[in-house]
Amino acid sequence: MKAYIITIGDEILLGNTLNTNAAFIGEQLFEINIPIVKTSVVGDNNTAILNELKIASDSADVILITGGLGPTHDDVTRKSIVDFFKTELVESQEVLNDIKALFEKRKREVTAVNVDQAKVPKIAKVIRNQYGTAPGLWIEKEKKIFIVMPGVPYEMEGMIESTVVPKLKEKLGEEEIILKKKMLLTTGIPESTLFERLGNLDDLLQGAKLAFLPNQFGVKLRVAVEGSDEKEVKDKLMEVEQRIRSKVGRFIYGTGEDQLEAVVGRLLLEREMKIATAESCTGGLIGNMLTNVSGSSKYFERGVICYSNAAKVEILKVDEDTLAKQGAVSMDVAMQMAEGVKSTSGSDIGIATTGIMGPTGATPDKPIGLVFIGFCDEKVCTAKKYRFGEDRLLNKQRTAQAALEFVRRQLLGISFDD
Amino acid sequence: MKAYIITIGDEILLGNTLNTNAAFIGEQLFEINIPIVKTSVVGDNNTAILNELKIASDSADVILITGGLGPTHDDVTRKSIVDFFKTELVESQEVLNDIKALFEKRKREVTAVNVDQAKVPKIAKVIRNQYGTAPGLWIEKEKKIFIVMPGVPYEMEGMIESTVVPKLKEKLGEEEIILKKKMLLTTGIPESTLFERLGNLDDLLQGAKLAFLPNQFGVKLRVAVEGSDEKEVKDKLMEVEQRIRSKVGRFIYGTGEDQLEAVVGRLLLEREMKIATAESCTGGLIGNMLTNVSGSSKYFERGVICYSNAAKVEILKVDEDTLAKQGAVSMDVAMQMAEGVKSTSGSDIGIATTGIMGPTGATPDKPIGLVFIGFCDEKVCTAKKYRFGEDRLLNKQRTAQAALEFVRRQLLGISFDD
Repeated sequence: MKAYIITIGDEILLGNTLNTNAAFIGEQLFEINIPIVKTSVVGDNNTAILNELKIASDSADVILITGGLGPTHDDVTRKSIVDFFKTELVESQEVLNDIKALFEKRKREVTAVNVDQAKVPKIAKVIRNQYGTAPGLWIEKEKKIFIVMPGVPYEMEGMIESTVVPKLKEKLGEEEIILKKKMLLTTGIPESTLFERLGNLDDLLQGAKLAFLPNQFGVKLRVAVEGSDEKEVKDKLMEVEQRIRSKVGRFIYGTGEDQLEAVVGRLLLEREMKIATAESCTGGLIGNMLTNVSGSSKYFERGVICYSNAAKVEILKVDEDTLAKQGAVSMDVAMQMAEGVKSTSGSDIGIATTGIMGPTGATPDKPIGLVFIGFCDEKVCTAKKYRFGEDRLLNKQRTAQAALEFVRRQLLGISFDD
Repeated sequence: MKAYIITIGDEILLGNTLNTNAAFIGEQLFEINIPIVKTSVVGDNNTAILNELKIASDSADVILITGGLGPTHDDVTRKSIVDFFKTELVESQEVLNDIKALFEKRKREVTAVNVDQAKVPKIAKVIRNQYGTAPGLWIEKEKKIFIVMPGVPYEMEGMIESTVVPKLKEKLGEEEIILKKKMLLTTGIPESTLFERLGNLDDLLQGAKLAFLPNQFGVKLRVAVEGSDEKEVKDKLMEVEQRIRSKVGRFIYGTGEDQLEAVVGRLLLEREMKIATAESCTGGLIGNMLTNVSGSSKYFERGVICYSNAAKVEILKVDEDTLAKQGAVSMDVAMQMAEGVKSTSGSDIGIATTGIMGPTGATPDKPIGLVFIGFCDEKVCTAKKYRFGEDRLLNKQRTAQAALEFVRRQLLGISFDD
């Protein structure tokens, strides 16, 4: 059984709204092991929708459609369904009752356009809408299933959970294939190096699937194993994960939806340690990331955004001589900043960033992308030099991510040597 | 000229990653008035890609493709392009040089897989990649244009801005219909209030089009005027803008791609003033936003992220009595924080935030979403109370936006009274 997702709506096509519905449906179908052959977006346009329904029914068994079921003039999906199946609209007493009940609860009068929404294509079974007026439609014809849902995310999600997933599972019946996946999150290693370190992929995977998903924070590795026996699949996934970890384990900071700032937070919490930040080039980004995590006040003591040299000297006690001789962007200043924020705040760890983010500020020996990150705890005061790219915002993000990774490695005793 | 966007990638199809690329491209094409007939997502699968290229070239003139150009085994887009156009790969010296330069700058060895990326389909012109190793491809055949770009958002965005949009504009040449648009950016006013204040839309617009585009930072108003005469269209757009400004002008902080942090930066620069931040609940976000703007070191002196009460007292000289009696989340503490960071830093303006971001930390009289923003300059020390929502990250963003808007209004003498 293969699926095809059609999203209908001008606002998605024009990029004003992100297509979160297709992503949600994709995840739900992946969970019940229905492969998706394609997702598409077309505008609120009868011809385009009819054309797309034809393409979809030629290439998949289940076609999931969202959007364009609202009560206004630019919602044409219901008409397209009627045209496509050469059927007609009939009033559904069940839907009308649902709509009346909803309006009664909201203490509002039912309007004519809402009564009209109770008319559904004769060929369709109704999928009840718990959160709105537009009913969903379930249509089976010539062994194909068409599922039509509203575009409002929570209305669609309600239908997927209450009706669509259970009914599709029923259809899948016995021929169930078990699919398990795991996302391993790496940082501080480029995709090509990661690929090379993993060596021969056939030996590594032995039939499992591996995808590399890079973004500015690192590379995610998605491992997937398919089979017919629950335990075998689970064991195999664990084995493959272990083989990957044995090769690139120290670059893996988490799994699934983990975020590095939350991983670092948990490590600090476990150790009952507090951290303070001294940010020059990241300008508050590290503090912002740390405090995105609920409960971070338990381990984040304070941060200083020392954009000026005066701030570095006054608050962080950086040595004026070092600043004058080596410049603010230097190994020693990074170390002194980390030490300064640690001692003045009475925290266990100080982490500091100083660098040239661009596009201006470069000198012959200090190019754009040059960054020093300082780290200080009760045992060690150290700093590391990094070289990032040309883009200011990416440089800030990469520096912040590298600083958090620095803390993670120090806390876990993972070396940076290759 | 009609466009078709194809996004390639299992991670998008499966819903692990949101399709932000299609949205970005959609917005960019809208700006240059190229209608999009459809966007689609297919997996990293040669057959599916070939099939989709066929459908796309049958229904549009420009086909924009992103994803699957990386160096690993699951990236198959380049092969599909070679197959589709029945062409072959040839090494591009230009791309090889770009890759070598990139690695040299990052002080890394060029690996074999990266060298392989310099091979491009013979039929294609190269679109240079400023931020990564995979080159983009520009292919023209039988009056259709195929544009192939990497899936990494900033790499793709760089290509769209530097090459794709300018070249497409050139192709469009003399357009018969003139379309002019302007985006007016508002903040601090809900969509429904904005709608009401604008009054009768027919009188206001007189044939122009208006779209309300809300996000967490405010509501964007997109005004569009179409016509056949350049000057008439331009004049009409200006008239409509003036009518909108006469009704809701003080909520408009900028136009187009303006960001509030850059608007505030320009105002400070013009006045030769310096600002310092004291952030509790925003945790560094305001500093991060201010320093996202290149050249911000000229007006951003320093920031203090005073997550703990100790930091508020030690660095900002907040009165311990006030903290004990009124609590950290209070009007007086916000004011004292703003005053403290202004005076200790020797800046002209101090801005401060303190609040309860959730999901924990609420008390009976201090609910989640309660925020105080303090402002202090040489003339006035004041604070304002805000009430945001339940979501931690949204609360941080709204607070930071409101704080920057506070500064903008004080600098321009715009009152908060309705």
